[in-house]
Amino acid sequence: MQTLQVALPQRHYPIHIGPGVMDDASLLAPHIAGRQVMIVTNDAVAAWYLERLKATLAGYELAEVVLPDGEAAKTLDHVELIWDALLAAGFNRRATLIALGGGVVGDMTGFAAACYQRGVGFIQIPTTLLAQVDASVGGKTGVNHPRGKNMIGAFHQPRAVIVDTDTLATLPARELSAGLAEVIKYGLIHDIAFLDWLEVNMAALRRLETGPLSEAIRRSCEIKADIVVEDETEQGIRAHLNLGHTFGHAIETAMGYGSWLHGEAVGAGMVMAAGLSQRLGWIDEASFERVERVVEAAGLPRHMPSAINADRFLSLMHLDKKVFDARLRLILLKPLGQACITDEVGESAVRELLEGWPRR
Amino acid sequence: MQTLQVALPQRHYPIHIGPGVMDDASLLAPHIAGRQVMIVTNDAVAAWYLERLKATLAGYELAEVVLPDGEAAKTLDHVELIWDALLAAGFNRRATLIALGGGVVGDMTGFAAACYQRGVGFIQIPTTLLAQVDASVGGKTGVNHPRGKNMIGAFHQPRAVIVDTDTLATLPARELSAGLAEVIKYGLIHDIAFLDWLEVNMAALRRLETGPLSEAIRRSCEIKADIVVEDETEQGIRAHLNLGHTFGHAIETAMGYGSWLHGEAVGAGMVMAAGLSQRLGWIDEASFERVERVVEAAGLPRHMPSAINADRFLSLMHLDKKVFDARLRLILLKPLGQACITDEVGESAVRELLEGWPRR
Repeated sequence: MQTLQVALPQRHYPIHIGPGVMDDASLLAPHIAGRQVMIVTNDAVAAWYLERLKATLAGYELAEVVLPDGEAAKTLDHVELIWDALLAAGFNRRATLIALGGGVVGDMTGFAAACYQRGVGFIQIPTTLLAQVDASVGGKTGVNHPRGKNMIGAFHQPRAVIVDTDTLATLPARELSAGLAEVIKYGLIHDIAFLDWLEVNMAALRRLETGPLSEAIRRSCEIKADIVVEDETEQGIRAHLNLGHTFGHAIETAMGYGSWLHGEAVGAGMVMAAGLSQRLGWIDEASFERVERVVEAAGLPRHMPSAINADRFLSLMHLDKKVFDARLRLILLKPLGQACITDEVGESAVRELLEGWPRR
Repeated sequence: MQTLQVALPQRHYPIHIGPGVMDDASLLAPHIAGRQVMIVTNDAVAAWYLERLKATLAGYELAEVVLPDGEAAKTLDHVELIWDALLAAGFNRRATLIALGGGVVGDMTGFAAACYQRGVGFIQIPTTLLAQVDASVGGKTGVNHPRGKNMIGAFHQPRAVIVDTDTLATLPARELSAGLAEVIKYGLIHDIAFLDWLEVNMAALRRLETGPLSEAIRRSCEIKADIVVEDETEQGIRAHLNLGHTFGHAIETAMGYGSWLHGEAVGAGMVMAAGLSQRLGWIDEASFERVERVVEAAGLPRHMPSAINADRFLSLMHLDKKVFDARLRLILLKPLGQACITDEVGESAVRELLEGWPRR
């Protein structure tokens, strides 16, 4: 087992990474304030892991909420179900929530914990690679709104994160690839040596070899933690983590949540961001092709959905919350291995990129 | 105009108190980040002050939400209406919300701001005495749930508070008395000299004399700020502010929100807390009678509703969120002018008090 300490200004919390860590009650106990524990999960994950986690937590006053699987379930209505269940169980402000599942379960559970009696503790047990390397660090919680993703939410840090690498054995290959998109992102924005390492180890990661997998998760969380600690409320460089996301959110919104996986949209979005960076002369053609190849090697799409024309795509990008006062604000590469924030890119350059982009 | 600075660990904000301050755009401008401003108010307050505030804010990109008046409106559905309106107006994360109204409007607006795009700024313009002396300081926001008051919410500090004492001229006398309950509370828990002052000035306050009113508001906010700054997330002495509230919440819940005003229930609750303190020998009979008299002089009830028997009352007190792991945790007086937190009072002592309490 590896343990990474995330050191925030007001609180530290551990991320424990390794096979079978979900079965170790001693990793959970220090982070549970009272006796009341509510497990929130989804039906797909519950079938694999709910009884196992309940066995680990024997002795606590347990309650559970099982939500539908998928991004479409990430609604305020489902968070209300969690609140209703907490109140029906008589859970007080020392209750602890445990999120057992992917990013959707983690975001909803974290938001439910943030607002229940103005804030109770929660623990994350992320079961997808995406959640393990993304939602484990940063404290972002929330739900989608019909008018946009993650529009309602809060910053709320977990008490601990338990990353059981065994759970990846039951993850569909497509979701593994989606998680690799975020792993690649950390190399692109912050650590060219990690990108080199990923190019060498991508096949091993897709074969779920334990050593490389643990290393990729640990290094991803470490990079994200470095960035988040420097900028906890997303005023500055934390925005680098949004590489590919403004493009990606446009794809997700246009196609309807759940059609493309978040990581797939981010994968294509990162290649688009690299393409725009190349157009601006900030990275060279060889660097662009490295981005293209590593995204493809992860099993991710790099094309744009043929259903979206450039006008629609641009208007969806403007809707993204990273737009300040109607100017497009983008995260690009300058050079490869380092992200930059810019609001100096004209709409026409983006339009040209979109019009020439491969579609499928 | 008087200005009080509330100094929190991570942020300072001013409370401006005086006649006509709502008309002074220069008090608002420093606390509005972008150009997008949404005013949230209720129908009763809108009739008096909405156009006036809009005139002060001419030049901003304005939107407004007018909610129904009253505690029964303090629901998640209404907060959702605010979020829907913010998204429909295309407001981004630099938007500012302004709460124009009493505590209900302030709590809902603050909660909407806390969770919109994970947190935007808000300004309070409290128009009831209760909101001016209570909700102005502390950062508590939230909504009620059918199973209990303030069960869903967040801590979110305002950027500024504008207390226009002119607004009290349109406040019903019953609501003025409800506000005076919280004013009295500050004397009881923290400042015996302020209690002396209140006994002398109570009639002038009820006649809305400007001088005493401004002084009572300023001193109340100052005491609350001292306590809140010492204990921002309510782990310790901030609980003193709940004097009378566990009793009061039981009355409110039993009678249905909106039947008794919050301040009326707190007024009766404070006399009950004083009665229990006297039974325990922590205050003498003369002190208990001072509490009884000052509450009555403010025009507040001191009886218990005859519809609630002792069993029901006790079970409602246990539901209150200030109960830890099933032990009643109460705020009492020890001595007059100083609050204490105790979980050592047996249920039988509370039951005896309730059974002998005057009813109406």
